[in-house]
Amino acid sequence: MDTRTGLPVVGMVGGGQLARMSHQAAIALGQSLRVLAERPDDSAALVAADVHIGHHGDLAALSAFAQGCDVVTFDHEHVPQEHLAALAAAGVTLWPPAAALRYAQDKRAMRERLGELGVPVPRWRPVATAGDLAAHAASTGWPVVVKAVRGGYDGRGVWLLDRDDPLPEGPELIVEERVRLRRELAVQVARSPYGQLAVYPVVQTVQRDGICVEVIAPAPDLPEELALRAQHLAIRMATELGVVGLLAVELFEVDAAGPAVPSTVDHRLLVNELAMRPHNSGHWTIEGARTSQFEQHLRAVLDYPLGDPGLAAPVVVMANVLGGGPGGTFLDERVHHLFAADPGIRVHLYGKQVRPSRKIGHVTALGDDVTSVRARAARAARWLQHGTGIGPGRR
Amino acid sequence: MDTRTGLPVVGMVGGGQLARMSHQAAIALGQSLRVLAERPDDSAALVAADVHIGHHGDLAALSAFAQGCDVVTFDHEHVPQEHLAALAAAGVTLWPPAAALRYAQDKRAMRERLGELGVPVPRWRPVATAGDLAAHAASTGWPVVVKAVRGGYDGRGVWLLDRDDPLPEGPELIVEERVRLRRELAVQVARSPYGQLAVYPVVQTVQRDGICVEVIAPAPDLPEELALRAQHLAIRMATELGVVGLLAVELFEVDAAGPAVPSTVDHRLLVNELAMRPHNSGHWTIEGARTSQFEQHLRAVLDYPLGDPGLAAPVVVMANVLGGGPGGTFLDERVHHLFAADPGIRVHLYGKQVRPSRKIGHVTALGDDVTSVRARAARAARWLQHGTGIGPGRR
Repeated sequence: MDTRTGLPVVGMVGGGQLARMSHQAAIALGQSLRVLAERPDDSAALVAADVHIGHHGDLAALSAFAQGCDVVTFDHEHVPQEHLAALAAAGVTLWPPAAALRYAQDKRAMRERLGELGVPVPRWRPVATAGDLAAHAASTGWPVVVKAVRGGYDGRGVWLLDRDDPLPEGPELIVEERVRLRRELAVQVARSPYGQLAVYPVVQTVQRDGICVEVIAPAPDLPEELALRAQHLAIRMATELGVVGLLAVELFEVDAAGPAVPSTVDHRLLVNELAMRPHNSGHWTIEGARTSQFEQHLRAVLDYPLGDPGLAAPVVVMANVLGGGPGGTFLDERVHHLFAADPGIRVHLYGKQVRPSRKIGHVTALGDDVTSVRARAARAARWLQHGTGIGPGRR
Repeated sequence: MDTRTGLPVVGMVGGGQLARMSHQAAIALGQSLRVLAERPDDSAALVAADVHIGHHGDLAALSAFAQGCDVVTFDHEHVPQEHLAALAAAGVTLWPPAAALRYAQDKRAMRERLGELGVPVPRWRPVATAGDLAAHAASTGWPVVVKAVRGGYDGRGVWLLDRDDPLPEGPELIVEERVRLRRELAVQVARSPYGQLAVYPVVQTVQRDGICVEVIAPAPDLPEELALRAQHLAIRMATELGVVGLLAVELFEVDAAGPAVPSTVDHRLLVNELAMRPHNSGHWTIEGARTSQFEQHLRAVLDYPLGDPGLAAPVVVMANVLGGGPGGTFLDERVHHLFAADPGIRVHLYGKQVRPSRKIGHVTALGDDVTSVRARAARAARWLQHGTGIGPGRR
C-alpha cells in the first residue's frame, strides 16, 4: 500500500508504451504505476514517477522491484518462468500468474493446451528438421508458417517458408498451415481474481509485414453469431487458462467453404495468438470504449469490479504510427499540421526515438461511417510517418 | 526541447490536481509535464517524472524551474506579478502572459477592465470602510458580497455581509451586489498565441458553501441565444485580455425580469470570476468532450492547432468528491463498491490525503437523460465522500 494515498501499489515489469499508457490510466485511479524499465529513456520511464531501472531477466532486479508492490503485472511476456516461480515463492502476487502466462510465452504449450480444450487453431506440429516440415506441408500444402516457440513479436520469429527454404537455425520451432483467411480479428477480455469477466467488442485487425497497422472497432459486417463465438472463446480461454488481467485473442476468420476447414460457425474462427496484457489491438479503447484496456487491466489485477467495455462511438479506428526515418523535430511539426487538418483526431505518441518501422505512436478516429473514419485514421498515420498525404485542399 | 524525444517541454507551476491531470494529458502528446511542486507528495508530484520542489513565491526556484522549459504555464494564479516580470525579462515564455494573468489574480483590476470592455458584471466598488459598504448597499440592498481582491478560492476570501457585520480585516476588498440568480453557468475557451480559439459548450455549475460540487454539460434548457452570448463573451474576453491557454468564465444567469438588471439578452449573463488555466468547471471534458481541457490547454500553450471541443455524449455530469473524514484504506474499499454498483462511472482520484471538504477527486457520468445522469454522479460522489447511498437494490 502507498502510505501517502492509502491505495495499493501496482508494479509493471517493462517500460514500453503499454506501461506508459497504463501509468496514464493509473493516475485517474489515484495511483502511480511502479515501472521496471531497462533504460531511463524507455517510453514509460519518461513519464512515470516511480521507476526502477533493471532487466526483466535479472531476478535480483525483479525481487527488489516487487518489494512494496501489492501486485506485479507485465507489459510483455519475457520474464522467465523460473523467475516468476521464485517471485511467487517469495510471496509476490503475480497477475497473470505464471501458470497462465506460460501460454502467452510458449506457442507450443499454448497450442497443446488449446487442443485439449477443443479450441480451434490452424493445423500445427513441432518441427526440428526439414523432414518434419515436409511432412506437415504434405497435408497442408506449401508455403507453411514457421514460428519460434518463444520470444517473437511484431513479425519477428515468424517465417513464411516455401518448399526449398531452409529452416531457421537456433530457436525451438513449430510449423503451421498457412490459413486462407478472410481477415484477422481480435477480441479482448478482462478477468479479475474473483473471476469477473468483461469482454470488449470484436475488432478487425490489419497487418502489414507482420505488424498491426490498423484496428477497426467493431469489426465491420461481422455476423452476430461469429462475434458471439469469438467473445465466448475469449471468455472460455481466460477462465480455463486462469488469466487475471487482460487476455487478447488474435483470430483468423476463415471461409466457411474453405477446403481445409469445416463450415460450421465453430470452425470459422481459428485462434492465432494470445497475449495476457494490454495489447495493440486494444489501443482504440482509450477513447473508443467506456473503459480503456489500460484501466481495465489495472482494475482486474487490483480485483476491482471491471468497467463498462462498451463502445463510446459507432465506429472507432486506430492506426499505428511507425517510425519513418531519422528524427529531430519533424514529429512536432507534423503534429502541428495534423491537428490543423483534423481537429478531431486523437494522437498518442510514445516518446520514443524514431527508427524505421518502430511503433512510435498511434492515432484514433471516431465517427459514424467506417469508410471515412478509416480514411481519417490512415491519413493521419501516414502523415506522421512519412510527411505525405496532408496538404491544402486535401481534407 | 527534450532532446530524447525532439518535442518541446512544458513546465507547470503548481503541483495540484490540475497539474496532475495535465501531466496525464501530456503523456498522449509524447510529452512529460515538468512540475514545480511545493512538496513531494503534492498531487502531481506523485505521478510526474520531472518534478522540481520549490515554492511559487521564490524567484530563484521559479527561475531554476523555467530553465529548459519551452513554455511555462500555471495550475494556479499565485505567482506574484514581479516574479512573472522577472521571468519574462529573462526570456521565459509565459502562457498566459503576466499582463493577462493579472486579471485572474486581481478581482478589482478584472472588474475595471471588463467595465471598459462593456462586459456586464454585478454592480461593485472598492471598499475600505463600513461607510463604503453602506454606500454600496444603499443602491443594491443588503446583504452584500465582499471579496478579497487577491488570493481567494473555493469560497475562501468571500463573505456574505449583512447590515451590522464588520468588514474583514487585512486584505484589500471589493463589495458586490448579491445577485438574484437563476443559476450559475460556466464556459471555457482556449486561445493559442496565434489567436486560434476553441470554445466548449456552456455548462451549469452547482456550488455548495462556495465550492463547486456539480457540473452539468451542456447546461440544461439553456436558450440558444444565451449559450451563444456566453460563448461570445468568453471569446471576446480571451482575445481582449490577451489570454493564451484556457480561460474559464464563471457566469451568473439572472432573471430577465429582475429588478436590478435590464431584460435584454445582453444583460441576462453577468461575469462572476475568471481563471486562466484548466478549471474545475471543465473536468467533465476528460471523457465528455472530444478534447479534454487539459490537452486543450497544452495544445494552446504549445501553439498547436486546437482540438475539437464538442460533446462526446448527449449529457455529461461531473461531481466533485470532497474529503469526508479521516483516511486509511476506506477510499480503496469505497472504489470497489462504487465500481460494482456502476460499471460506467468514471473516477478520478487525486492521490491526496483525505481532509474534510478538501477536493480529493471527481466522478463523471455520461448518458442520454439529465435526471438519471445527475443522480448517478451525485450518488457516486456521495458514496466516495460519506460511504452512504449505495446498497443492495439501490442501483
